Formats: sequence, C-alpha cells, structure tokens
Amino acid sequence: MNGAESLVDTLVGQGVDICFANPGTSEMHFLAALENPRMRSVLCLFEGVATGAADGWYRMKGTPASTLLHLGPGLANGLANIHNAKRASSGMVNIIGEHSTSHLKYDPPLTSDIEGLARPLSHWVRRADSASAIAWDAAQAVAKASEHPGQIATLILPGDTSWQQAGTAVLPEAVAPMRKAPDAARIAHVAKVLRSGEPALVILANRATRGTALQRAGQVAAATGARLGSQFFTARIERGAGRVPIERIPYAVPQAQAFLKGFKHLITVETREPVAFFAYPDKPSLLKAEGTVVHPLVEADEDSELAFEMLLEALGATGSEALLQSRVETPVPSGALNPTSVAHALAAALPEHCILVDESLTTGRESMGLTMGARPHDLINNMGGSIGYATPVATGAALACPDRRVFCMVGDGSAMYTIQSLWTQAREGLNVTTIIFANNSYAILKAEYANMGAGTPGARALSMIDIDRPRIDWLAMAKSMGVPAVSVDTAEGFHQAMVNSTREPGPCLIEVRL
Amino acid sequence: MNGAESLVDTLVGQGVDICFANPGTSEMHFLAALENPRMRSVLCLFEGVATGAADGWYRMKGTPASTLLHLGPGLANGLANIHNAKRASSGMVNIIGEHSTSHLKYDPPLTSDIEGLARPLSHWVRRADSASAIAWDAAQAVAKASEHPGQIATLILPGDTSWQQAGTAVLPEAVAPMRKAPDAARIAHVAKVLRSGEPALVILANRATRGTALQRAGQVAAATGARLGSQFFTARIERGAGRVPIERIPYAVPQAQAFLKGFKHLITVETREPVAFFAYPDKPSLLKAEGTVVHPLVEADEDSELAFEMLLEALGATGSEALLQSRVETPVPSGALNPTSVAHALAAALPEHCILVDESLTTGRESMGLTMGARPHDLINNMGGSIGYATPVATGAALACPDRRVFCMVGDGSAMYTIQSLWTQAREGLNVTTIIFANNSYAILKAEYANMGAGTPGARALSMIDIDRPRIDWLAMAKSMGVPAVSVDTAEGFHQAMVNSTREPGPCLIEVRL
Repeated sequence: MNGAESLVDTLVGQGVDICFANPGTSEMHFLAALENPRMRSVLCLFEGVATGAADGWYRMKGTPASTLLHLGPGLANGLANIHNAKRASSGMVNIIGEHSTSHLKYDPPLTSDIEGLARPLSHWVRRADSASAIAWDAAQAVAKASEHPGQIATLILPGDTSWQQAGTAVLPEAVAPMRKAPDAARIAHVAKVLRSGEPALVILANRATRGTALQRAGQVAAATGARLGSQFFTARIERGAGRVPIERIPYAVPQAQAFLKGFKHLITVETREPVAFFAYPDKPSLLKAEGTVVHPLVEADEDSELAFEMLLEALGATGSEALLQSRVETPVPSGALNPTSVAHALAAALPEHCILVDESLTTGRESMGLTMGARPHDLINNMGGSIGYATPVATGAALACPDRRVFCMVGDGSAMYTIQSLWTQAREGLNVTTIIFANNSYAILKAEYANMGAGTPGARALSMIDIDRPRIDWLAMAKSMGVPAVSVDTAEGFHQAMVNSTREPGPCLIEVRL
Repeated sequence: MNGAESLVDTLVGQGVDICFANPGTSEMHFLAALENPRMRSVLCLFEGVATGAADGWYRMKGTPASTLLHLGPGLANGLANIHNAKRASSGMVNIIGEHSTSHLKYDPPLTSDIEGLARPLSHWVRRADSASAIAWDAAQAVAKASEHPGQIATLILPGDTSWQQAGTAVLPEAVAPMRKAPDAARIAHVAKVLRSGEPALVILANRATRGTALQRAGQVAAATGARLGSQFFTARIERGAGRVPIERIPYAVPQAQAFLKGFKHLITVETREPVAFFAYPDKPSLLKAEGTVVHPLVEADEDSELAFEMLLEALGATGSEALLQSRVETPVPSGALNPTSVAHALAAALPEHCILVDESLTTGRESMGLTMGARPHDLINNMGGSIGYATPVATGAALACPDRRVFCMVGDGSAMYTIQSLWTQAREGLNVTTIIFANNSYAILKAEYANMGAGTPGARALSMIDIDRPRIDWLAMAKSMGVPAVSVDTAEGFHQAMVNSTREPGPCLIEVRL
C-alpha cells in the first residue's frame, strides 16, 4: 500500500467516503488510489465547484466530505467557497497535491506557498511529510473537520508521500464526539431574563435551527413569550408547515433596526449579536437598539439541544408545547413575475422535504416570509457572502440526499461564478432544479450604490453593474453542459416549470425572465 | 475629491488607464470614481478573468493594468491567474475592496485575512489606511508593478478610505526606470566560454525573447556558433519569418534530456537552468547532462539588451549579422485532424502580426516546431502552470492590441476554468478567435498517469480524466455568451474557419472536434 492508498483507505475508514476532485499531474497516485470502491469520486471542472459541493454535503449530512485540489493555484480557486463553508461551520477535508519534496527546491512553475494560501481560511493545516504517517495525518484531519462547529482541515500531499510505501497504518485513538453543555450559571441567568417577561428575541443559528434543538427552542418560546429569530443568513433551517417557525432579521440596516428595536433582550444561540453585512458611511455596524442587552446562551462549540433541555428544566417548562407553523395553501399565482408572485409560485410548488438553496439576492427577498407555511423543507443560505456558492452547494446537497429534490435559486450574476456546477449535475444525474433569476444585472449593487451615499450611478458605473450586453442565453448555457432547460416569463409558467422539474429525475434549469 | 477618486486619478496619472473589475458593495465609491473618462473599465463576470486579462495586457504593453476585486474571496478567485502572472513576470496593480475599518471588529461574514491571502502571491501588499495618503500608496503600487521584472502589487482599500475626503494628493518623487547591466566580469566570463567553441545553448527568457535583445542574441549566435533556446514556456516570443529563431526545450523529461545532452554549456538569460515541470518517481528534477556547466549571463532584474551589447563588444562581434528565420509557405492541409495537420493549418492561416496564446497542452504540442516559418507573430505561454490562463490572457492581449487578431488555442478541459472570458470578449467586441481543442478529456493526464508510474488508469481513475459524459456543446457555450461559433472536424475546415475569423471584427470560437 502506497501513501495515496493509505490516505484514501483512512479517509473511508473514518467515514469520509466522497471526494470532489479536480486532479492534476501531481495527484496521479491519489487518482489511482480512488479505485478503492468505498470512495465515491465526483469530478468537478472548476475547484470552486468542488469546495462548494463539500459544503453542501456537510450542510445536509453533518459529516465532512473531502476535496482533491491541484497545488496552490487549485486550492486558490477553491478558497472562496472554503470561506463560505467556514462561515457556515461546515467541516471539510481538503487534500492539496504538492510537488515531491526533493523537487521543491528547484522552484518549478507551479510552486507556491501552499501553507500560506491555506492558513487564512483553514482551521488546521498540515504537510504530509511521510507515507508512513499519512494515515495518522488523515485521521487527524477528519477528526478536526468533524468537530462541532465543523472545521476546515487542509492536508498538503507531496508527490513522494503519495508514491512511497506506507507500511502499517497507525491511527490516533478515536475520541467519541463530545457534547459540550453551557455552564449552569449562564442557563440560570437566561432563565431569569426570560421569566422577567420583558421582550426577548432568541436568535438561533447552526444546529439550533433544526431537529430537537429547534423543537425545544419552540417550547421555550411557548412557555415564556420570547420570540424566535435567525440572522438573515443561516446554515440550514428546517422550516415550513409543522416546524417551529423562526422570524428572520432583515438584511437592510434600517429594517433590521426597526425589527430589533422592540426587544429589551437578545439571547444568542450558536451565533453573536446581529451586525450589518457591510458598513455604510452613515449607518451603524451593530443593529440592536440602545439599551438592548445581549445574553449569550449557547456558544458556537456548545450543544444547543442540551442547552434548551437545561433551560426548560430551569424554567420548569419541560412539558410546554411548541407552537408549530400551520400549513398555508398558496394558490398558484398568475401574471407578471415579481418578488411576490415568485414567492407565491415557490410556496405552491415546493414539494415535501425538498431542499432550497438560496442565492437570489434581490428577486428572492420576499420569498422567505411567504413560504413559511409551504410544505416542510430545508433552507440553505450563503453564510460567507462570497458569490457563486449556490450551484456548488446544491450539487453537494443533492449527492448527500439523493431522494430529495434540490431547488437552487440564484441570480444570473451569481450563477456565472461557478456555472461549471451544471456539468457535474448532468454527469451525476443529480435532482437539482436550478432557477436563474435573469434580471441581467447585479441588481443588488444598484441599491447598495444608493445605500453607500454614492448617489445615482453614472453611465460608466452602471456599465459595471448591468450585465445585459450581451444578455446571457441561459437555455444555451444549460444545453452546453447537458442540462435540459426552459424559460418562463409568467408566474404560472414558473410554477408549472418547477412542478414539471420534479417529475423526472436528473437536473434541469429554469430561466426566470425578469 | 474622495479617496476613491484620488486613487483612480493617481492610477491614470501614473499611466494605469485600464481596470478589469468585478465589484461588490464595498467598492461602490470606487465604481463612482470610475466615471473618470481617462480610466477604461472592463467588467468581468469572474475574478480569474480580471487577473488573467491584466496579465495579457502586461504581456503585450509592458505596463501594468489594474484590477478591482471584492474583499478576500474576490481576491482568492483571482489568485490562480495572479500566480501565472507572477511567474510570467507580469506587473499588475490589484485593488481589493475591504470593509471600513470601524466595521472590521464585528467580524461580518465577508471578513477574512486579506493580507494573508495576498502575500503568498504578491511582491508588495499595503492597506490604504487613509484617504489623504492613498495617492501616495497608489503611486507606490504602480512603481512597484512597473519594475523589471514586473511585480504583483496589491492595495487593500477599506470602505472609509474610499469615501472620506482626500485633500491634496501627495506623490512620491518619480524615479526614472533603471536599466541594470550585468557586471563586466560576468560578461567577460561568458565571452570566454563562447569563444571556446564548445557546444553552448543560450537560454532566453522574458524580455530577451523579443525586440533588440533578441536581435543581438541572434548576432551572438551567428558570431560564436552558440545555439539559442527557450524554456518550454516563455512569457512572450516574437517569432516567425524574419525573426531570430529560438529552439524550444521539450516538456517531457526524457526528450528534454536528449535535447540538452549535447551542450557543454548552458548560458541563462533572465531565467535559470531547465527543471522538470513536475517530479516523477524515477526521473531527475534537473534536465542538463552530467558535466554540463550553467553560466548565468543576465539575472531576472537585469537588462538583456545592454547585456548582449556588452557581450558583442567583448566578442568583437558588434558587426555580425543575425541569422533570421526564412518564410516557409505551408500548403493548406486536408483530411484528419491530428497534431501535425493542426500545426500545418495554423502555419498556413496565421496572419501577419497576430498574437497566439497557447494553452493546448496536448493537441498543440507539435504546433511550435511547424510554425517557425509562419508569418511573424507573438507567442504567449502559460508560465505558472495553473490551468485556465488562456482565455483571460487573450482577452487582455486583445484590449492591449486592438489592431491585431488574437488566436487563443486552448484544450476543452482548460477552457472550462475561466470560460466567462467569452462574455467580456463579446461585450467589448474583441478580436479574439478562441480555438477549443475538444478531445473530451484532460488528455495530458493520461500521459502523466503513465509517466508517474501509476500504470494504466482503471475505470474510476479514468472517470476523473475523461470529461466526455456529458460532452460539452461548445457551439451552445459560445452562443450563451454572445460569441459566434463554428465546429470543424477536418484540417481544411479548421484552416478555413481561422481565415474566416479574421474577416470580421469581434470574437468568435472554433470547436476543433478531435
């Protein structure tokens, strides 16, 4: 067994059984090791697709995927979506091919400071210096990536480590996953705040927006009158009919301030107090009102399920019943497409247990409020703000959940960063419906231009915002990568296209002409 | 004048009058400043297109372009082509938007360590901390980028620096560009080596492969019997009929060793001794034969033109005549497409003074030898080895030289990394003929798999090398971004399509079906 085989063997032994790969010459032994039938390899034509897919995989599975990237530049191409994954607390194991150790001193063209490139966006970076220790390194990488919150582990794999003989694998002792509870004093303090009856918002994030933790948060809300909220962006929310509903703090600073100003207390769960996404010349960074107090309940590395259990005990409310969202039947809309009719079409069309990946920065702004009573589904947001996350994340989510349809809502500008995702979706026959909101513009920037106090854009500034010359032909784009596509320009057409897309397996694309 | 306006004003004042931009919210004031009519702004739909275009601009102009990128992730997306530009000694000025200083402490989602991401691939990194000093910072960035060899200068621009008032611009004193000569002892030593009559190869790179420097290298060769060579990849070569011909050191290790083994002396000019692109288990990193001696003649920061002038003086050969490549009329080939017929079609079709950007890793391997006697043209190679350089570099080269047709030869796998270039080419009406060699495979990896001693790829490894499921529809891809396209499957068809592409202004794409 050579180093590459030992590495792949260790990864699958530790539960990492998918690799999103874009290999090069220095990774040929790793490629050979991928013959291991326990590892699924998924080819991506651009590295940002690979890292974004690993993020999508983690969001749905809760366990890390691996990526295979080609030296420093291959890692660089994957970094933007690693940033997004890091901000989403998604764990992943990146394997970065590297020149063999003896070759590096000659500074061949593809040489770069891979550790330097990896560190700003990784929690853990290691160079696998020997074939005999690579099993240990790989197991450590998986353990790190599997922590709560998930971590970015980057393992640099020199060619000679790959091709040398590995000997018997030596692994670190397995550590059972730790569930860390908040300390009792913090629980008691928050219980006291909630019992005061003063207006309180419990802001839920990461693992608190789903499963048992969300259910218990709902019990707390029912027992105390506190409201449940989320940041504007959340890693994954279980929502829709039958789920505990969560209110969304608005994106724009004035609206967020208006929403928050009624609360005397903000109680944070796996997140911090709300801050503006960007700074604006005359607006504050912090969104809460003066006099509002922030109380951390659950830190990012603690267990929300345990915390809410302790809180319910402290409140004497273990028997309370969470208020659940009721089903709202939304009639199929018709006529012109606008944010409201788009949201109604979504609410009517979303099938039970679908996954909604949202990167519709402007057109989709209304969608969340109007889909609260849709059939139960999972919602995934962009946590890092680097554009081009949606189509790769949808790709990974579809691989993680082959029995669920993924709807990927994305603006035309955003879709172009990592459009190569479509090819992987076609190759793997993934159940992804990509919805392109084609407004031929970075529409969000028009609003942000004004928000920044830069006035009305002139002709030259506008030409950096509008992407209408030429208009992107989305039917041709989908066809070029083997994905069937339709174009719609009415609300009823949009609804019908979504419904149709669920009737056949495999990917499709809907261009929504705005 | 605010900071952003002062920045743009300084850039154009220092001769940087083009900006390849992919802006976001934090760059709205910079966008407003782009109303400055002396700055040309070119929108790119992906940051790797922007940085690659800046590289292409520098290769042809010899002066830096600027890029505008959105925070750390925007820079990350541009890094792979910054790596390639750095290895090509191309100067560029990257402006990286950043949160305003007061906002950073709240760690909003798009925050990252921009300096950390920039440093591994930049020669110069600075954070522009005040609007009043930004003119100074910008002038320093341009000066750094304009050094020989060109440097990567990265200027981080916080929002508040953009929007605050700048006051009167204070600039560093202008320094006249320095031409640095090698020391006389080195010249005398190389003259002695050349006079020995022992077999010598003069390896030319960067500025030595064109203009007066190349002409004088040709005089040295004529006077001494030394041969002129280049590395397999070179930043830009002036070649074809009427130019001093340069022999190319082969890519593959055994062929490169065979080529070099006859030389007792290697004389390096703006480069170092030849090394293998990758390390292979049983092959050496250094390619020269045992006993061959390497003599540096011109270091990377020295002036080849001066050096060859001094060398001709030392040799008493200032009056020698360089041997020039004669024109070879290549008949239009017909029949099957293969590396030889592809090369013949190119040789017959290339118009005078065109620019050839080459990223055809396998199909184009024969092209260079068989186009030595083509009409005079410039050849540009990928110096950093990060795939996806060609279509952006062709974009920048076409903007730099609007009167010259650019032929961009690129493999299908390579083209997919930065395919968004086509859109910018359509938008700007650039004279680029993109030639896609569609073999539906990362064909180079099949050879490299064997070279690595990994044997014959199994089914799973092959599925990470072949990109034929689905086949990319290149006519649809081109259409999606507004570029007219044709598909050819014969040598005569390929030739005709290239000739046709020169008859109309604007971009087009030729799919060469292999």
